[in-house]
Amino acid sequence: MTAVKKKGSQTLMMADPPYIASWASIVGPKESEGPWVKDFDLIMEDYLWEEASWEKTETKMLRETIKLALSNQNLQPQDAELLLAGDLLNQIISSSFAAREINIPFLGLYGACSTMAESMVLGSLLIDGGYFERVVASASSHHYTAERQFRFPSEQGVQKVPSSQWTATAAGAVVLQKSGTGPRITSVTIGKVVDMGQNDGANMGGAMAPAAADTIKTHFQDTGKVSDYYDLIVTGDLGAVGMTLLGELFIQEGVMPTPNFSDCGVLLYDGLQGVDSGGSGCGCSACMLAGPLLRKMQNGEINRLLFVATGALMSPISTYQGESIPGIAHAVAIENI
Amino acid sequence: MTAVKKKGSQTLMMADPPYIASWASIVGPKESEGPWVKDFDLIMEDYLWEEASWEKTETKMLRETIKLALSNQNLQPQDAELLLAGDLLNQIISSSFAAREINIPFLGLYGACSTMAESMVLGSLLIDGGYFERVVASASSHHYTAERQFRFPSEQGVQKVPSSQWTATAAGAVVLQKSGTGPRITSVTIGKVVDMGQNDGANMGGAMAPAAADTIKTHFQDTGKVSDYYDLIVTGDLGAVGMTLLGELFIQEGVMPTPNFSDCGVLLYDGLQGVDSGGSGCGCSACMLAGPLLRKMQNGEINRLLFVATGALMSPISTYQGESIPGIAHAVAIENI
Repeated sequence: MTAVKKKGSQTLMMADPPYIASWASIVGPKESEGPWVKDFDLIMEDYLWEEASWEKTETKMLRETIKLALSNQNLQPQDAELLLAGDLLNQIISSSFAAREINIPFLGLYGACSTMAESMVLGSLLIDGGYFERVVASASSHHYTAERQFRFPSEQGVQKVPSSQWTATAAGAVVLQKSGTGPRITSVTIGKVVDMGQNDGANMGGAMAPAAADTIKTHFQDTGKVSDYYDLIVTGDLGAVGMTLLGELFIQEGVMPTPNFSDCGVLLYDGLQGVDSGGSGCGCSACMLAGPLLRKMQNGEINRLLFVATGALMSPISTYQGESIPGIAHAVAIENI
Repeated sequence: MTAVKKKGSQTLMMADPPYIASWASIVGPKESEGPWVKDFDLIMEDYLWEEASWEKTETKMLRETIKLALSNQNLQPQDAELLLAGDLLNQIISSSFAAREINIPFLGLYGACSTMAESMVLGSLLIDGGYFERVVASASSHHYTAERQFRFPSEQGVQKVPSSQWTATAAGAVVLQKSGTGPRITSVTIGKVVDMGQNDGANMGGAMAPAAADTIKTHFQDTGKVSDYYDLIVTGDLGAVGMTLLGELFIQEGVMPTPNFSDCGVLLYDGLQGVDSGGSGCGCSACMLAGPLLRKMQNGEINRLLFVATGALMSPISTYQGESIPGIAHAVAIENI
């Protein structure tokens, strides 16, 4: 008995919903200044964490987050059967080099900032399908590796515009299991690429909002649920500007003028960190989920969560060549059942 | 009833082996000079194919290959339920922009030159698990996009060493189905990252060979098969240097001193194209599979094929920072049954 999908539907309902049996998150100094410091497993004191480069630090963050997520239920890396991971760096080196140390079968993913949801979509389907007992799904980002790769070297001090977002220094990992205890993944919606022609690289939230709207609308159409079914619907990293645009798209399409909606990019910081429109990066939604949000599910403060991580599928080269910024969003329904 | 995996095994045996119902490949001018010109669906007359940049050409190649693979059984993109794709470019833009036009649910992958196998591993599991009826798995590379991203601008005329490989200008796509006709995927082996400390970026075949050896050895251990079970075992893109090293590793480990073994990087060209050690790039194994090799399976010349695409999980940044080159390989068993 495996997951069920109606013909033409983008949503897969789990037959035997996999458990999120444990999780972990590691964040940087700035991320610890927000409202959630007690909900992360480890706070880095600086951006290098005793490594020789920011890239090596990001690898260490992801590797240690994966190990922490497993050790939170007294497991070792070799107790997991598959690692699904991705990040923002060219050729996803943070993930590949983390996987080298973790030393279990590995499949690398790239969904930009939607990667945490992508890894959970695949991980939960592979468990529900009966292939694996235990899979780790994970993602990371580091502010300074992303800045120098996608934008300008930080040392150059280029001024930001208000719609720009701060790539979070953060990693998150969840341990998905066929059996155990914990919140369960009940359905997933796999998104399409949506491109409304936005080409402003300093407004990624705006570029991703149409994809988020499309996936959320599709999730409700496919499942027949209404928006207040969930205690919280949380997008990945639209930031304040993107979240406002998403609200407009919702009202335009008559989907969801409800109050149970927020965004990890808005939630991660508290407005005093100079992050302009909010947080971004694979790690933003990854650490918010594998920290504060799953903690709230564990405590019963949230019982039904729709996690919708969003990604902007551009590169500096595609932008130089005049392309607009396509977005994608995948939804993961997590419930205490 | 879904796939079966023994505890501790990296190999998943399909319960109801998915069909490779159709496929397609598109290659560049140099690739058409080799022995397989009649086996590809489309030969590009030049490296731009009426596009303004090589990157846009690679997107077009992948998009048109996906459409051709579907149209080879009179289907349209909307007849497929999921697109799995990846490529070598930063942020896998070839795949993301191809997915924008194909406009079906999309999951982006990165496994370097192992990506074609990675996409088939996931696609076949998701079909065998009962989630989808029809999934497209695909990958691409373009010589000139890869050269300027990973090495030097071609205009600079940097001299190559004999162990270097030629990134193929090629794309391949297979249409995986729950029902239909054609060769079937009977099992898959998901590889681990293997790093023997090789750090010569001009000898990628050498860096990947240990991963290929590990995955092939694991496949035989897990399945209890012996190497001459397969009519052909074909690695992704080790090239002549890497293939020689793999042969040595096999003999060292007592695995397979058999003649039914070759490599897509060796096969793609015929030695007259100045490609040094052979072909490479995601498209090398993708076009060889979704062209000559599946054609031979269709004709019954090959009835049992083990396709083992290999990837070097480095980036220019990781190399600059002194890292060695980790490799990975995934195996896909394809049989006429």
